[in-house]
Amino acid sequence: MAVLFRPIIPVDHSHWAPVLRDVLGPYDLRIAPEAVNPEDVTYLAGWRLFPGDAAAWPNLKAVLSFSAGVNQYVGHPEFPKNAALIRMIEPGLSRQMCEYVLSYVLRFHRAHDHMRDMARGPWNTVIPPLAAERTVGIMGVGEMGGACARPLVDLGFQVRGRSRTPKSLPGVESFAGMDSLPDFLAGTEILVCLLPLTPATENILNRDTLSLLPRGACLINAARGKHLVETDLLPLLDSGHLDQVALDVFREEPLPPGHPFWDYPQIHITPRPWRTSPTGSAGNARPDGSI
Amino acid sequence: MAVLFRPIIPVDHSHWAPVLRDVLGPYDLRIAPEAVNPEDVTYLAGWRLFPGDAAAWPNLKAVLSFSAGVNQYVGHPEFPKNAALIRMIEPGLSRQMCEYVLSYVLRFHRAHDHMRDMARGPWNTVIPPLAAERTVGIMGVGEMGGACARPLVDLGFQVRGRSRTPKSLPGVESFAGMDSLPDFLAGTEILVCLLPLTPATENILNRDTLSLLPRGACLINAARGKHLVETDLLPLLDSGHLDQVALDVFREEPLPPGHPFWDYPQIHITPRPWRTSPTGSAGNARPDGSI
Repeated sequence: MAVLFRPIIPVDHSHWAPVLRDVLGPYDLRIAPEAVNPEDVTYLAGWRLFPGDAAAWPNLKAVLSFSAGVNQYVGHPEFPKNAALIRMIEPGLSRQMCEYVLSYVLRFHRAHDHMRDMARGPWNTVIPPLAAERTVGIMGVGEMGGACARPLVDLGFQVRGRSRTPKSLPGVESFAGMDSLPDFLAGTEILVCLLPLTPATENILNRDTLSLLPRGACLINAARGKHLVETDLLPLLDSGHLDQVALDVFREEPLPPGHPFWDYPQIHITPRPWRTSPTGSAGNARPDGSI
Repeated sequence: MAVLFRPIIPVDHSHWAPVLRDVLGPYDLRIAPEAVNPEDVTYLAGWRLFPGDAAAWPNLKAVLSFSAGVNQYVGHPEFPKNAALIRMIEPGLSRQMCEYVLSYVLRFHRAHDHMRDMARGPWNTVIPPLAAERTVGIMGVGEMGGACARPLVDLGFQVRGRSRTPKSLPGVESFAGMDSLPDFLAGTEILVCLLPLTPATENILNRDTLSLLPRGACLINAARGKHLVETDLLPLLDSGHLDQVALDVFREEPLPPGHPFWDYPQIHITPRPWRTSPTGSAGNARPDGSI
């Protein structure tokens, strides 16, 4: 009856140990890389699988994931047979996500990144519309997308959500299925991606789809790096078709030095410092691609 | 029974003419600088007084101000005797203000302006707190301040309001009177100024008061340029006592070329493009110092 907690090197996960000891009560907590008898391990806790996991743990009952997403487990050949997958849903996580998304929606809505030019040129030129005249489109309106939609609706934005199946969220116009994607995109001025990563959604943000957004649209990707075809993004920025982009995820993380994204002031890069511990101390699953 | 509408040169106010014609019905609308018999003018509409106003309009009933603030009229020697002052309150105006304030509160809260450095340095370092752990202090919780407080409370921020007399707003901690100012400031991480400009509030944002904010605090002034002692601001930014500042108003407007504020990336300058027409077209009283 041991829980094996496996931090991600080189992220400092030391603050997790006392929190886990606190909540696990009678369970025997082991922290990798300490030596452990594989037969004792009934739960694996952390952010990802490791080579050999499929066969290493004969008495495993479940994998406890500290991520909201599950793409690093589902269908993975190393996922231990007969083990359950338990995904963490933690209010602080969706609050963080929501505040992140909202902060960039409002920044783009209010045209912060054009204000200096405006102020230096003719004073009093561009007038941002009211939120009521601005359409925000959310791709993926599950746990996270729904949490982000609510305050946007409250602030008066026109909010639309695209999902596989129709969703009924107060104040959110639902677009269901892949067929609805062109209509959904054509009316979206600020696009927020909060999709799960699946074979159907991988590369969904590409030249063809992003070109359907109206000229001057903005993009916020807070889902997974693989949703975006990164090489398709730059020509759309260069031509002015896209105006501003906030990226919290990348195909390779941390974003490598020399990556062209670093040179674009219109690309707002965040290291996604999500907190996943309810205690106020910080947890983060970067840079392994999980959270 | 004529209404004389006086646009502010060089702002383009041409979009106002059809709107005013539409709503004024039987009134005779004249638009400056067209020739007009002063005895015919019963209402002056616009954003400010002009030299000679005190004596020029023998039959004036009221001055219709398109501003929310009234400091450009009250006590002014050119204010026509016996005329009433009618101030505009327009939902679009407080919505615009609210969206402006919210956009910078969230930008500062989420540390947008530190994200590039964070991302280039060690990935995964600074973790913004949740809104529930962030205190936003609003100076002036009247029409505008109250409108801005509500969504901040809804988003979970700790909101405090300082005003001359105690105010009871849901979820907002009230600090009343000048004596409460030090306590109010000591706990405020993001300070929003929405005060009316009066002799008591002029220069209220100065070295002494801003020094009472905790180190790393941010400031948003959306009220009047004269609330801030501009020369006191730069040393506080240079020392790191203040982190980011959003200014929508200045002592001289438009902010003159060569003003030191232009050189500070931590000072976010906006030309305050408020819309004051309910029709969706734009009105703006800059650069005269009114709204």
